[in-house]
Amino acid sequence: MSQIPQWVRELKPSGPQGSELLKQERDNSNVNVDQLANFLHTKEGRQRQTRILKVLQSEKVFDKSQNYFAGRTDRFETALARAKRLRQLYVKENWGDQERYTANMLISEPLPYGLHESMFLITIRDQGSPEQHQKFLKPAENYEYIGCYAQTELGHGSNVRGLETTATWNPDDKTFTLHSPYLTSSKWWIGSLGRMANHAAVMAQLIIAGKKYGPHPFIVHIRDMKTHQPLEGVHIGDIGPKFGYNTMDNGFLLFNNVKIPHISMLSRFSSVDPKTNQYVRPSSPSLVYGTLTWDRDAPEWEKGENQVLNYTMVQIRLLPLLAATFAMHFTGKGMMALYDANNRKIRQNKESANQSRGAGPEETESSSDLLSDLHAISCGLKSLASSTAAEGLEVCRRACGGHGYSSFSGIGSYYADYLPTATWEGDNYMLTQQVARYLLKAARTVLKGNEPTNDTTAILAYFLSRQDQGAAFDILGDDSDLVAAFAWRSAYLTFEALKHRDEQKRSWNSLLVDFYQLSKAMSQYMIVKNFYEALQAPSTSSELDPETLGLMHKLFRLYALHTLESEASEFYTSSAVTVRQIQLARSSAVMKLLEDIRPHAVRLVDAWDFPDWQLDSSLGRHDGKVYEDMFYRASELNPLNRITVDPYPDSPTLFRKDESKELKSKL
Amino acid sequence: MSQIPQWVRELKPSGPQGSELLKQERDNSNVNVDQLANFLHTKEGRQRQTRILKVLQSEKVFDKSQNYFAGRTDRFETALARAKRLRQLYVKENWGDQERYTANMLISEPLPYGLHESMFLITIRDQGSPEQHQKFLKPAENYEYIGCYAQTELGHGSNVRGLETTATWNPDDKTFTLHSPYLTSSKWWIGSLGRMANHAAVMAQLIIAGKKYGPHPFIVHIRDMKTHQPLEGVHIGDIGPKFGYNTMDNGFLLFNNVKIPHISMLSRFSSVDPKTNQYVRPSSPSLVYGTLTWDRDAPEWEKGENQVLNYTMVQIRLLPLLAATFAMHFTGKGMMALYDANNRKIRQNKESANQSRGAGPEETESSSDLLSDLHAISCGLKSLASSTAAEGLEVCRRACGGHGYSSFSGIGSYYADYLPTATWEGDNYMLTQQVARYLLKAARTVLKGNEPTNDTTAILAYFLSRQDQGAAFDILGDDSDLVAAFAWRSAYLTFEALKHRDEQKRSWNSLLVDFYQLSKAMSQYMIVKNFYEALQAPSTSSELDPETLGLMHKLFRLYALHTLESEASEFYTSSAVTVRQIQLARSSAVMKLLEDIRPHAVRLVDAWDFPDWQLDSSLGRHDGKVYEDMFYRASELNPLNRITVDPYPDSPTLFRKDESKELKSKL
Repeated sequence: MSQIPQWVRELKPSGPQGSELLKQERDNSNVNVDQLANFLHTKEGRQRQTRILKVLQSEKVFDKSQNYFAGRTDRFETALARAKRLRQLYVKENWGDQERYTANMLISEPLPYGLHESMFLITIRDQGSPEQHQKFLKPAENYEYIGCYAQTELGHGSNVRGLETTATWNPDDKTFTLHSPYLTSSKWWIGSLGRMANHAAVMAQLIIAGKKYGPHPFIVHIRDMKTHQPLEGVHIGDIGPKFGYNTMDNGFLLFNNVKIPHISMLSRFSSVDPKTNQYVRPSSPSLVYGTLTWDRDAPEWEKGENQVLNYTMVQIRLLPLLAATFAMHFTGKGMMALYDANNRKIRQNKESANQSRGAGPEETESSSDLLSDLHAISCGLKSLASSTAAEGLEVCRRACGGHGYSSFSGIGSYYADYLPTATWEGDNYMLTQQVARYLLKAARTVLKGNEPTNDTTAILAYFLSRQDQGAAFDILGDDSDLVAAFAWRSAYLTFEALKHRDEQKRSWNSLLVDFYQLSKAMSQYMIVKNFYEALQAPSTSSELDPETLGLMHKLFRLYALHTLESEASEFYTSSAVTVRQIQLARSSAVMKLLEDIRPHAVRLVDAWDFPDWQLDSSLGRHDGKVYEDMFYRASELNPLNRITVDPYPDSPTLFRKDESKELKSKL
Repeated sequence: MSQIPQWVRELKPSGPQGSELLKQERDNSNVNVDQLANFLHTKEGRQRQTRILKVLQSEKVFDKSQNYFAGRTDRFETALARAKRLRQLYVKENWGDQERYTANMLISEPLPYGLHESMFLITIRDQGSPEQHQKFLKPAENYEYIGCYAQTELGHGSNVRGLETTATWNPDDKTFTLHSPYLTSSKWWIGSLGRMANHAAVMAQLIIAGKKYGPHPFIVHIRDMKTHQPLEGVHIGDIGPKFGYNTMDNGFLLFNNVKIPHISMLSRFSSVDPKTNQYVRPSSPSLVYGTLTWDRDAPEWEKGENQVLNYTMVQIRLLPLLAATFAMHFTGKGMMALYDANNRKIRQNKESANQSRGAGPEETESSSDLLSDLHAISCGLKSLASSTAAEGLEVCRRACGGHGYSSFSGIGSYYADYLPTATWEGDNYMLTQQVARYLLKAARTVLKGNEPTNDTTAILAYFLSRQDQGAAFDILGDDSDLVAAFAWRSAYLTFEALKHRDEQKRSWNSLLVDFYQLSKAMSQYMIVKNFYEALQAPSTSSELDPETLGLMHKLFRLYALHTLESEASEFYTSSAVTVRQIQLARSSAVMKLLEDIRPHAVRLVDAWDFPDWQLDSSLGRHDGKVYEDMFYRASELNPLNRITVDPYPDSPTLFRKDESKELKSKL
């Protein structure tokens, strides 16, 4: 780009400078930072950090200034250069564990030797015999063997017993045959495997004479020590870009009947006796697994194949969101109808509306009830709906487990691109003040005894007339009562906020949290009400068959009751419901609705009619070919796999071969 | 990479295939997908989507297969090619608004004409006179003028009245002078400005004869129509990579006394009379602003300069997280101490522990109370602490407003790299079953009348002995009572879960949600207890001065009371607290603590002692030079600014100049 002109260089920020503000902040507090920092980190820890920071900052390779700009391959290349240099510094500066930990925290990005330096070394150390320490640990500690820990498979995350990779004992030549019988057997997510490792600690099902003995660790040579190309019968690669962690080469690994010698099975605790061809049991089974402890405790039902949607913990995260898609669709349609109906009236009223300005901040709204109502409600709904959508995307991504973290899930990029919605066109937190201001104003007119002119003033007036008797909403039996409970809570919070503001004369700023809650309550009421009304509309029952209409009613109840339960304390406090009702809502009503809706989940999603091409997601495919698609993208489309690295720390070369440019020109 | 071998190509996923599972799912539901989809989208809408999808899929430029791999510049280049082709299709296929909307949804990425096609055209259309429509709108509709909407500034997001860019009327030559007096006056975040626009609709403070008339819209020529280089006195560029939205060239823009003609001020509603040099007022002020409606309603206190940390809505999001950093630090230290103390004992007990296996799923825990306790508590804490950290990063990012979305905030990449922690080493949801299993077992031994052997059984036994009398914890007056209320709630939830499991014989799966809540409750109790105990320890009071120690007590109370309020319904239901106490906790105690802690926020963060180099964040700088750093990174480090585009849709060239490779080789 063109040189930055002098007049730009001379510009300063306006107003108080950031440095002045921070000085003010620090002057206004008497906290002894040095003392507190020593208490938190110890003096020695802080001195260590200062020392190591100085070393790292003096090395050009650790310069961070291009980190945020680089693409995947460039980031990996830089990370490889850093990893090599860091290893050289370990040796040169004689850094121990604490120094290495500090250096990694300061660099703040996962480096490609990460799994070699942790799980690979630990596994050999903890599970290897003295002979194996000699054979494997020494070259690994010298970075001649570069290793990884290959446990997780494409089809099996936390369920270690379900691992499919087999290691079959061959009594004739005293070897094991490693094999991947299925695509889902592919090792997956293995850090430092994708481009770096020449050896792997592979967890595989041990088979002797046709009998399975469960998962055991094997040290397997996977890439040629000179050419760094995969050995015969071994298929390896990087699994592709992820939401983060892109400086690490998480990899996949498949074996096609690869023979390995007897010494490859780590034998400190259990082994195969080559003379008798018998399995030698460990003295204590718990010693074998190490990191696998967790799985042994899993209840039986987790061990078999079970679709994640059958877990109630997954249902409670996803099905209310599915209900929310319908709830918000109907609310959007309701708002458009309201907008169209009021449009002419609003224009007529606009002139008179502008005359009531000039009072206090809360009184600056237009006097047109319809315009104000529409404005306030749309502010609140924008805030609630876009927050629900953004958070919902993250919930969906996490519900996909590890694979949700892969870029191929498609959810990470949707989330990242969607996020500005929560900030632009009115920040979602700021907007809630608009709703509160309108509701306070409406409450004042109701208190004065004015007749209700719209739904908002109607629910406020109803609350006022009934608050002494209290409410007795049959939220579990009657849908219109369920809507009424939401109205009641909104009205209660409105008058509470009004009391704080007008009677207790509290400042606007001190009430922002109350206003936020109030806006959320009112918006949730609007959504519940619009959903309810849409289901009452004749057009709905004429377009949908009775079964689907019935399911829509269940989705309505799920959205309403789940929301009510999540905001339980406001519903109690307002006396809209009893503690017993809330307990029943959660423990029976919501759980029953999850069960009823569960079988229809896929078809309800199908009805949204998203083409695969739009979602561009391996996990969201309409045909369910999830593993095939993940594997195809990782293996065939991923440019990082066109690069052969030089993984040894003392060699200055980073890449031995780079075919990625060739790929680029093909596009 | 090497060709994929035949044996890999032949592999299939194991078990039921995804396609079979989805068929099963669809067979198990009678929802009429076609009918429901028509109801949601209308038949016409769906046909339109099918038609447009077919067109887009047949064009090579819209192929998505490399989207997840490409870096920023490549993504922008591809997006530019797509935007041009899409514009050609609009014309060729004669697509109206609905077709264009559908096409954009299907492509699913922001394209570089985005703001030209929306805000730029709308602004001229809505605010321009007929003469201005002729002069500006026509070439804009023909994509000769490529425009953007330049309102937001580096130092001013939602506060439109605070805009600093000035447009000063020159009575002599009947022109306006546009000027950016400060670095913070730089237009910022402006979509389609960074590389694309040759014109901008600029919102600037109108000044006539020294008097300010507020923000008004001006159409300004900013780049040469032939060379596409910035005009004299105009400094423009792309603001750099963001968390998402990287196919869009959000830009910055500074003016150094740039003269523009009288016609540039959009004059449908207000104008400067060139004969009298007087401002001509609009008939209704609300008509002028259009998108600015929101700001006019803001209360007075928002309009001045106010640090965001003074907003209670920001305090309630950030200060409990600040308290959580200390709470978890002390909990971590407490857990390490517990681990060290028990380590020998655990080893001794290990053998006997392994003998009790083989019973039902809940009974498979070790018989060593200490080991089990440590195991269960660390499972729960891993889940809660890593979820708190991940969600906390997002809260911090959003609290920074728009700038938090820039990659330069540093928070987005921390969030993305941190996220796997919530899934690996035990999925955060799955882990909570471990905690529940342990607590159920402990509760059974307590019910049998066994003496408490550790803190967990002690709190369960206490609850059992007192549940009939109920609790009367003085949560607002006594810190140890506050801890006890957390213990009480955990014990209550444990016995509730036990009742469901052992008396009502409910299935394990149906109780996962209860177990999740139970684990969270127990972990929150552990954190509150560890924080409390750390503050009682003599080593703490000897290392910290009384003021700092007092502040730590306030942080303890903030963490505990804010958590209690967030989980209020469980505290009510267990009768640990009254409704009145919760109301007081929120409306007075928590708000007062925020006020007390607020002045020390910066120093408390300083004490964590993060070097700038580690955080690599424009916003987190220790010296507060936030705007200077954002601007420097955007303007000088950003490789996209080394590219000059060819922005016109009918021209086949994408880039006119690409200096980015030169930059790359310099690194």
